[in-house]
Amino acid sequence: MAFGGDYNPEQWPAQVWPEDIALMREAGVTMATVGVFAWAHLEPRPGTYEFGWLDQVLDLLHGGGVDVDLATATASPPPWLAQLHPETLPVDVDGRTLWPGSRQAYCPSSAVFRERATALTEELATRYAGHPALALWHVGNEYACHTTCCWCDVSAAAFREWLADRYGDIEALNQAWGTSFWSQRYGDFDQVFPPRSTPTFGNPGKALDFRRFSSDEHLACYIAERDVLRRITPDVPVTTNFMAHSEVVDYWRWAREVDVVSNDHYLTADDPDGHQELAFSADVSRGLAGGRPWLLMEHSTSAVNWQPRNVAKRPGETVRNNLQHVARGSEGALFFQWRQSRAGAEKYHSALVPHAGTESRLWREVVDLGATLDRLSPVVGSTVRADVALIFDWESWWATEHVATPSIDVTYRDRALALHRALLAAGLTVDVVSPPTTGGQLAQYPLVLAPTLHLVSSSTASVLAEYVQAGGHLLVTYFSGIADEQDRVHLGGYPGAFRDLLGVRVQEFCPLRDGQTVRLLDQTGTDAGCSDVWTEDLHLTGADAVLTYADGPVPGCAALTRQARGAGVGWYLATRTDDTTTASILREVCAEAGVTAPYDVPAGVELVRRHSDDAAYVFAINHGSADATVQIAGTDLIGGSVIDAELRLAGGAVAVVAQAAAG
Amino acid sequence: MAFGGDYNPEQWPAQVWPEDIALMREAGVTMATVGVFAWAHLEPRPGTYEFGWLDQVLDLLHGGGVDVDLATATASPPPWLAQLHPETLPVDVDGRTLWPGSRQAYCPSSAVFRERATALTEELATRYAGHPALALWHVGNEYACHTTCCWCDVSAAAFREWLADRYGDIEALNQAWGTSFWSQRYGDFDQVFPPRSTPTFGNPGKALDFRRFSSDEHLACYIAERDVLRRITPDVPVTTNFMAHSEVVDYWRWAREVDVVSNDHYLTADDPDGHQELAFSADVSRGLAGGRPWLLMEHSTSAVNWQPRNVAKRPGETVRNNLQHVARGSEGALFFQWRQSRAGAEKYHSALVPHAGTESRLWREVVDLGATLDRLSPVVGSTVRADVALIFDWESWWATEHVATPSIDVTYRDRALALHRALLAAGLTVDVVSPPTTGGQLAQYPLVLAPTLHLVSSSTASVLAEYVQAGGHLLVTYFSGIADEQDRVHLGGYPGAFRDLLGVRVQEFCPLRDGQTVRLLDQTGTDAGCSDVWTEDLHLTGADAVLTYADGPVPGCAALTRQARGAGVGWYLATRTDDTTTASILREVCAEAGVTAPYDVPAGVELVRRHSDDAAYVFAINHGSADATVQIAGTDLIGGSVIDAELRLAGGAVAVVAQAAAG
Amino acid sequence: MAFGGDYNPEQWPAQVWPEDIALMREAGVTMATVGVFAWAHLEPRPGTYEFGWLDQVLDLLHGGGVDVDLATATASPPPWLAQLHPETLPVDVDGRTLWPGSRQAYCPSSAVFRERATALTEELATRYAGHPALALWHVGNEYACHTTCCWCDVSAAAFREWLADRYGDIEALNQAWGTSFWSQRYGDFDQVFPPRSTPTFGNPGKALDFRRFSSDEHLACYIAERDVLRRITPDVPVTTNFMAHSEVVDYWRWAREVDVVSNDHYLTADDPDGHQELAFSADVSRGLAGGRPWLLMEHSTSAVNWQPRNVAKRPGETVRNNLQHVARGSEGALFFQWRQSRAGAEKYHSALVPHAGTESRLWREVVDLGATLDRLSPVVGSTVRADVALIFDWESWWATEHVATPSIDVTYRDRALALHRALLAAGLTVDVVSPPTTGGQLAQYPLVLAPTLHLVSSSTASVLAEYVQAGGHLLVTYFSGIADEQDRVHLGGYPGAFRDLLGVRVQEFCPLRDGQTVRLLDQTGTDAGCSDVWTEDLHLTGADAVLTYADGPVPGCAALTRQARGAGVGWYLATRTDDTTTASILREVCAEAGVTAPYDVPAGVELVRRHSDDAAYVFAINHGSADATVQIAGTDLIGGSVIDAELRLAGGAVAVVAQAAAG
Repeated sequence: MAFGGDYNPEQWPAQVWPEDIALMREAGVTMATVGVFAWAHLEPRPGTYEFGWLDQVLDLLHGGGVDVDLATATASPPPWLAQLHPETLPVDVDGRTLWPGSRQAYCPSSAVFRERATALTEELATRYAGHPALALWHVGNEYACHTTCCWCDVSAAAFREWLADRYGDIEALNQAWGTSFWSQRYGDFDQVFPPRSTPTFGNPGKALDFRRFSSDEHLACYIAERDVLRRITPDVPVTTNFMAHSEVVDYWRWAREVDVVSNDHYLTADDPDGHQELAFSADVSRGLAGGRPWLLMEHSTSAVNWQPRNVAKRPGETVRNNLQHVARGSEGALFFQWRQSRAGAEKYHSALVPHAGTESRLWREVVDLGATLDRLSPVVGSTVRADVALIFDWESWWATEHVATPSIDVTYRDRALALHRALLAAGLTVDVVSPPTTGGQLAQYPLVLAPTLHLVSSSTASVLAEYVQAGGHLLVTYFSGIADEQDRVHLGGYPGAFRDLLGVRVQEFCPLRDGQTVRLLDQTGTDAGCSDVWTEDLHLTGADAVLTYADGPVPGCAALTRQARGAGVGWYLATRTDDTTTASILREVCAEAGVTAPYDVPAGVELVRRHSDDAAYVFAINHGSADATVQIAGTDLIGGSVIDAELRLAGGAVAVVAQAAAG
Repeated sequence: MAFGGDYNPEQWPAQVWPEDIALMREAGVTMATVGVFAWAHLEPRPGTYEFGWLDQVLDLLHGGGVDVDLATATASPPPWLAQLHPETLPVDVDGRTLWPGSRQAYCPSSAVFRERATALTEELATRYAGHPALALWHVGNEYACHTTCCWCDVSAAAFREWLADRYGDIEALNQAWGTSFWSQRYGDFDQVFPPRSTPTFGNPGKALDFRRFSSDEHLACYIAERDVLRRITPDVPVTTNFMAHSEVVDYWRWAREVDVVSNDHYLTADDPDGHQELAFSADVSRGLAGGRPWLLMEHSTSAVNWQPRNVAKRPGETVRNNLQHVARGSEGALFFQWRQSRAGAEKYHSALVPHAGTESRLWREVVDLGATLDRLSPVVGSTVRADVALIFDWESWWATEHVATPSIDVTYRDRALALHRALLAAGLTVDVVSPPTTGGQLAQYPLVLAPTLHLVSSSTASVLAEYVQAGGHLLVTYFSGIADEQDRVHLGGYPGAFRDLLGVRVQEFCPLRDGQTVRLLDQTGTDAGCSDVWTEDLHLTGADAVLTYADGPVPGCAALTRQARGAGVGWYLATRTDDTTTASILREVCAEAGVTAPYDVPAGVELVRRHSDDAAYVFAINHGSADATVQIAGTDLIGGSVIDAELRLAGGAVAVVAQAAAG
Repeated sequence: MAFGGDYNPEQWPAQVWPEDIALMREAGVTMATVGVFAWAHLEPRPGTYEFGWLDQVLDLLHGGGVDVDLATATASPPPWLAQLHPETLPVDVDGRTLWPGSRQAYCPSSAVFRERATALTEELATRYAGHPALALWHVGNEYACHTTCCWCDVSAAAFREWLADRYGDIEALNQAWGTSFWSQRYGDFDQVFPPRSTPTFGNPGKALDFRRFSSDEHLACYIAERDVLRRITPDVPVTTNFMAHSEVVDYWRWAREVDVVSNDHYLTADDPDGHQELAFSADVSRGLAGGRPWLLMEHSTSAVNWQPRNVAKRPGETVRNNLQHVARGSEGALFFQWRQSRAGAEKYHSALVPHAGTESRLWREVVDLGATLDRLSPVVGSTVRADVALIFDWESWWATEHVATPSIDVTYRDRALALHRALLAAGLTVDVVSPPTTGGQLAQYPLVLAPTLHLVSSSTASVLAEYVQAGGHLLVTYFSGIADEQDRVHLGGYPGAFRDLLGVRVQEFCPLRDGQTVRLLDQTGTDAGCSDVWTEDLHLTGADAVLTYADGPVPGCAALTRQARGAGVGWYLATRTDDTTTASILREVCAEAGVTAPYDVPAGVELVRRHSDDAAYVFAINHGSADATVQIAGTDLIGGSVIDAELRLAGGAVAVVAQAAAG
């Protein structure tokens, strides 16, 4: 189990370093990420490299038994880059240059930046190839986090090249984007600008392709460095830290390019149930890793500094967060950062060694956590067993939240989270998967959820139809299947790509006003919950109505439908139900699909199973304040106690119950 | 009766066009607006014109019996214009360039743009002069809708020329703008910049003139094209589609320059009583047309796509909206657009042929509507009879909503709407008129309303005084008559231009705090409603107090006053009354002015009369859900039934009762 | 007593000027500020000066017995400056140029601007040296009010010079700013840009220094002009009008450079108790003047024009506001402006002569006010006697409200205001002081308050420790003593600079969520009020808990502590208490420090004492609407009556009770 975090010794006098190593030993730290923001220290002047201090740090760490996740240090260029090459600075949608003085101030399409970054990578790889501490390469950092897109002239030229590659000739682009609308027809790729500020709504096809392009440009930066590393140190795995459930890039395309998926996750301080969203992020990470173990690269011991109000974690919260990640497939838990900065923009970000020093509750928790993770080493290599699949698609996300859609309240991630949250409460585990390209990809799942899968190509639609035909159960929610992969509407009635599969035809969208809600009835006319944001003038062409609207714009119309098809069932949910209604719908859908939770789960308790060939590990995490009981037997790896039949978990407590392989 | 809409065949393969014509026949379409956004198709490369497809479209339409409102296609330049001439792009107040990729990305002062636009106009006019389908020219589209003003250097030079024309010498400008304040005195016109972003509040006189200038620059674009058309096709009328009650340009100046006033109107989805604001827009259109018939050029069959939540129309709503426009003088009802786009920024904007196709309620309503309008052909040529006039003034609007006024809550259009709404509910019809330049202009009206008429020249003040002297009743509301046409305060006590006429003198404005309300009392001390936003330290110099404040900053001061003057009466309303109070005040004012509604109007029912020489047509529209009854006799042109004495209108129903001319 | 205001005769025809003088005599005006925005009139073309009109104005004023506060007229450059030198225009953080057309459109680092400004100053000083009306020089106007900082290239160069001066070598800067974080380490001063827009949070050290730099640059503009004036008219005092409690510049540095502190103060219309904040502003002014008399340079007779809703003052409010300033040390009361403008951005700003003219309540109040101030001439030269000191520190303000702090709800000025307000209600007077550099500076005060004193150097910490040791009582509030003067955290537990002095050690900040409150208990477990925004995981290392949290993140932890130390006491308030709780805490703290109010103060009544060698003057101002009684004897300078033992003040009334010196 990896335990540790970002270690930035350049912020401290060298005298502090030996103390760092001693404290790492005390806490049981096994891995340190070094040098993420060290470019300015490693190359203080263009082409002049200073590695002496890093040699010393790596040797000290190695001496302390700490593995090194060595950064290529290219996350943020040093001040001299903008001084020499102002054209490397990013420019925002309004034409505003973003200057150095924070971090990540570079245009991802800049050839100059890539050249300098790979040069540094080459120097680092050459110098530390074979260093015994080197366990992992860490390229860049949270790519695209701030400069998600760049609208500068360099980017404009790169965008034109990318488009020419994608479309071949300009008429194909015109067709894809529907440029006949508003006199936007291009005569040449040279006439295309990035989607900079316009007098009114820009072209949605262009916006979508610009997101794809921007994701690809950042990815190209990553790949350029990775290829250097693979050439020089072919045996050292390479990663870059994702922010798995953020919208900045299409991580399905990125996941193929890393040796280890790693993820950064921070709680949203305003959310009192942040552990639910954490669970989703961890499941996305595992999905990106194709179900294989992954690594939590960053989280925080307590408060961060970049939210409006940076709430501190309560005692025990960090260990619960930690174990959630491990339960869902992480092979450890790393933090940002080792020692809390004295100065700089993140000086109020918590760390393993806080401002208050080691005489603190926080440090004691860190030491305990190291011991806990050490006890979980049997878990390493095991994999998570999920009950349900949920399709997650960055391109649909981008398209759904474009301007000029039927309603600004139709958003993407929150719907996936709502379904995930309901299943979490029901004790079910979810695999997050990409839109399938072959039917086999989903065959293992009795139930697949497709929330707001807006962009659906004919081939994806066919694969999902095959899945149902073969016995799968599929739940699709509103604003899915509306458009093709170029965001062009499937004509003839919504949801075009899924009309046949679901047995419904929608004549018109009927979004609700701000704050408006509608009531739902079941087939006996009994109250069955409520919903908001969205309704549709839906006609049944084969499906049965399960729920209907009692009021709103289309009273009597179906809100939830069900159609048996081949050996499977297609469900369609045409409105945004509240959490209670969503849970109730999912109970019904799961029951029919034969999906049942392996354990009875008390409220507030999270249960997840990891399996190896010869054992199962049940992670039990009590997020509530009341005591809870789970009917389970085995040995608690953390507490060491043997559980005969019933695990008692105090409020806030955790356990990892190891069982001999039961299947 | 014109029926149809924008037809954009360039968005579809040519195979679709014959089906379009067949469907137009089915729906009874009589007019299509063609080519509004076709510049990039008509001139794909600079100077290379491709008219073949348009020849075919016009011939097909003609064959189908559909008249063509042919666009000059200059609403949005093609991509090559910005590529060749980046200086044609508009620049916003912050110096931010607005790029191509949406629509209308041109600076209205650009000589290059005007040259290219008139060249295309000349080609089109030459080619289609004499085409049998050509019934109307449609210049540009919703001028100034997005790029209301441009702050670029080209605009700066044009602004200086405009100012030199207006003022002759710089000292006159200094006087007009009050440049002695804050050291703004100009030595030369070359020192004047457009009102770009400044450290704090800019000069109000400059801001006002910049709005005038911007309106004139757009108008000059229109006139340049119109003059080409008049030269080549002198017999074909010319229009451009207004957005009649928007603030973007001074439509009084524009209305003189068109042969037919045409208007675009879209409901505000958030407003459950959007038909009230629709009625106002239609009345402004008729006012711009000088009382003559006009044409509804655009509205929507259902939802639009550009509001935050695009609520769909309920069944029957489109026909009610349609008939509102016709009742108020439109000679038909056109829509944007014929066939709903598959792609582009407005793909979710409803159309006559929706995404769902003709198997849809919406298409069936469209077909019914065509038949309904056909039955209304007797109405063509008749004019609307109004009871009251309301003065509407774009310059006062602009000046009222400048920065640095006494209260940001003092706004313009909403007050005109509030008075209009109250009269609509009372069954009265309103003519919207410009500030009068001769007394005769208002002589026909027993009552004239002047809401927030902020800028009043001495001559306008005299004309209104003459109107009252001669027997007219005039109601003026607060913040009227404060400044001259250059936004310089009339000194000596407010409202300077109206002090004598109204018999009041205000020592000081007393705006209210956010959310603060005051209670009103009548002369018996009885509660008489309430108001907010504004009060004044008002002294009576001849008028009588009708209502006074019970509390607030100036308890006991008059809130509503009345002064007889010559044969007429001047009323002054010094505060912002709520709807109930406004209705009550207007009842009293109307009663005294001898204004009575021709019919008893049930709640929610709209009644409007059009008259021809030999007949009257009473439009009855039930916006409510309950049945309603109107005492009226005649023949319902829509249903065909004869009404002896009482018209029964189901909830949501409409009727047009034709009567022999009764006077 | 100075009485009068800004006089801008250039806005009016010369025929109006004699009437102005006559009215000034009627009102008892003694001082006029002339020419603040007259640059464009004085130098209509570069290098061409026109002084004739000003000669005439000064002679007229002198003839009328009015002293002149003569402006250097450099507050806003004329239009020709930007035309000739566009590089003098300020640029905002986003790179947006701010154009002429309002006021103050210059970059404070511009050498061109300074050259032109000092040239005009030299001309003015030379011409009016010895003019009998000249009583005071008025340099610029509200420096930094709008263009607080400038981010242009000229400013960038000046910032680099300023940094080189401050730090000597770049490595010192790197240490000060903590540039090792995020790869910001500079190799050279030339690599430093101003803190322009960045991809994410900028460096806090740089932000702090940029505020210091900007304040210094404006100050350098002032000093350049002042030095010209001192050279040519060494006997005429020089001032520039501060906005004393605004955050734009560090007025402690400015106060040293003026001969007379003068202040502008405007009520916040939204605040029904604006007199409280006025009292604070006046106390800051007196603090800047080192306790010596100062001058209220601007306030308003009624509404201003630049707030969202510009509420008019009620009758009597202006005189109460006026006397508040005089009570707190102002030697008079000047207004902006003499005659209300007819045009321009501030035409709705009230004046001594309103739009309504002299037939108005407002003019009658002005005349009364002149007479009232005349009766207060015995007060001139007396000083205010305060009970408590409050440390106010612009640098802590700037640092506290940086981005990326633990909570955006931790703000600076409002906490100082909250403490000040509580003491005002208790009848206590507060001296506002700078962070002390020697113990002696605070010796006269039994109690010192240090709200949110975030940046504390070791030397300031020592001085405060000495103060307590010597018997002083010190109350420190949360987020104080956290960082050194470079905003680098004092390590080892918060509040690092005050841990020993206060006997507490904080392991972690625990900010509250938006809207969250916590309850407080006293040592008997009794409810003792409530607080919000902030709590801390506080451990006692010597102090006693006085109040503890009943709930929230750290129930049971201390919220208010007390530690006796030497002859004094250190109090620490670790949370944001509401007004009632704050008042209760201050009662306890004052009682222990032996601070008692000299009079029993009825609710809503403000009492302040000024003392001269032989008399005391008690200003009594009744801000409430109910009558009030104060036990005091003397002679009311305003009403003229002798008060035996009890002063009766009607609602809204004022009195100034003169007493023979009693000590």
